[in-house]
Amino acid sequence: MKTAGGAAGAKRRAGERAAREVEDGFVVGLGTGSTTAYAIEAIGELVADGLEIQGIPTSYQSRQLALEVGIPLTSLDAVENVDLAIDGADQVVDDPDSPAHGALIKGGGAAHTREKLVDAAAGRFVVVADPSKLADRLERSVPLEVLPAAHSVVADRVRDLGGEPSLREAERKDGPIVTDNGNLVLDCEFGPIDDPDELASTLSSVPGVVEHGLFVDLADATYVGTDDGVEAREY
Amino acid sequence: MKTAGGAAGAKRRAGERAAREVEDGFVVGLGTGSTTAYAIEAIGELVADGLEIQGIPTSYQSRQLALEVGIPLTSLDAVENVDLAIDGADQVVDDPDSPAHGALIKGGGAAHTREKLVDAAAGRFVVVADPSKLADRLERSVPLEVLPAAHSVVADRVRDLGGEPSLREAERKDGPIVTDNGNLVLDCEFGPIDDPDELASTLSSVPGVVEHGLFVDLADATYVGTDDGVEAREY
Repeated sequence: MKTAGGAAGAKRRAGERAAREVEDGFVVGLGTGSTTAYAIEAIGELVADGLEIQGIPTSYQSRQLALEVGIPLTSLDAVENVDLAIDGADQVVDDPDSPAHGALIKGGGAAHTREKLVDAAAGRFVVVADPSKLADRLERSVPLEVLPAAHSVVADRVRDLGGEPSLREAERKDGPIVTDNGNLVLDCEFGPIDDPDELASTLSSVPGVVEHGLFVDLADATYVGTDDGVEAREY
Repeated sequence: MKTAGGAAGAKRRAGERAAREVEDGFVVGLGTGSTTAYAIEAIGELVADGLEIQGIPTSYQSRQLALEVGIPLTSLDAVENVDLAIDGADQVVDDPDSPAHGALIKGGGAAHTREKLVDAAAGRFVVVADPSKLADRLERSVPLEVLPAAHSVVADRVRDLGGEPSLREAERKDGPIVTDNGNLVLDCEFGPIDDPDELASTLSSVPGVVEHGLFVDLADATYVGTDDGVEAREY
């Protein structure tokens, strides 16, 4: 028997493990990115086997994939509750002794605004990741979705806060990337982030910031795919 | 000699007084609304007399009026500094003994997101108002600009916070109003707001809220037009 190896195998195992939480009648938030894509595919197989659920996509990408695998779709304003959200992360704090245990950086795929909306609305939010995403503390750059008119003044404010902003450039399109909401993305290097909760609150208050990529106190669990299994963290 | 009477006269006097702060070479933020419109018209007269300035509009409305009166326009990402912003308000705390003295509610015209962006970037931000806008504390409903996909979950969160949200309906267009940024507006009744700073910070952190209409610690002065003059408040 052949098993998928390396990072792809780990991502697949994490995604499939999360999909096992989906129950009949659930409304499920469908995150964006390569690991979550394995979860969406696995959910599609459950639907093909007769499971009745509805999915809420968080991006054009997850919407397209959900349609391809046959998941019936709905939207946040059409449902009473979201039972479960499954989503990836760019970095996850994996230190039970840290007050930030389980805090995330998201937004590498520029979908963090709708992801946060759906993940925060869900009764349970599980993160799927491979071991390369785990860290003692957050230190990747923090993506900010910003109004187009705001990118330069937000960049000034980020510099005031000790960060180093750069406007994310597109490939296969001239100029900056444009999000699914029609906005721009500033990737902001703050170095190691000792207090993500405080930085999150500060960034939320900056005029022109639609949403930042810090997800603090939102995740309920992380499934970490490994070479031969899945490790679970509950928060 | 005939003078403009009533609220229109008071608004005109406040707007004209603010326009007198504009100096040669200034970059000026141009707010939205009926009182600010008098300031923009007065600035247009100064430009016709030879004053060289550039304006940054905060809405389609202020852009259109500025073009009509001949003010050269620029944008936030094209300038180093904004010297002065002039803008109206729906309500202004007018109580020197209150820690919220000078705090505002804005957004009746659904332009508060770009207004806050420009007002916050300005070296000096002056508010123009008539006496009907002054209050001991803020108690009007607080407009929230929200992502279209977010209106129902933000409304749920506002109810959790003790507010009563309603989606602002359009006239002369079916369905809700859509902002200049392509988003929706929730008007949220919180009753009298004892601590606008705390509520502002809380609302900023709600996923899906692009910007709220509480302007705390932003205004540097308010010019209040009266029946026969202008009263100035400096903060």
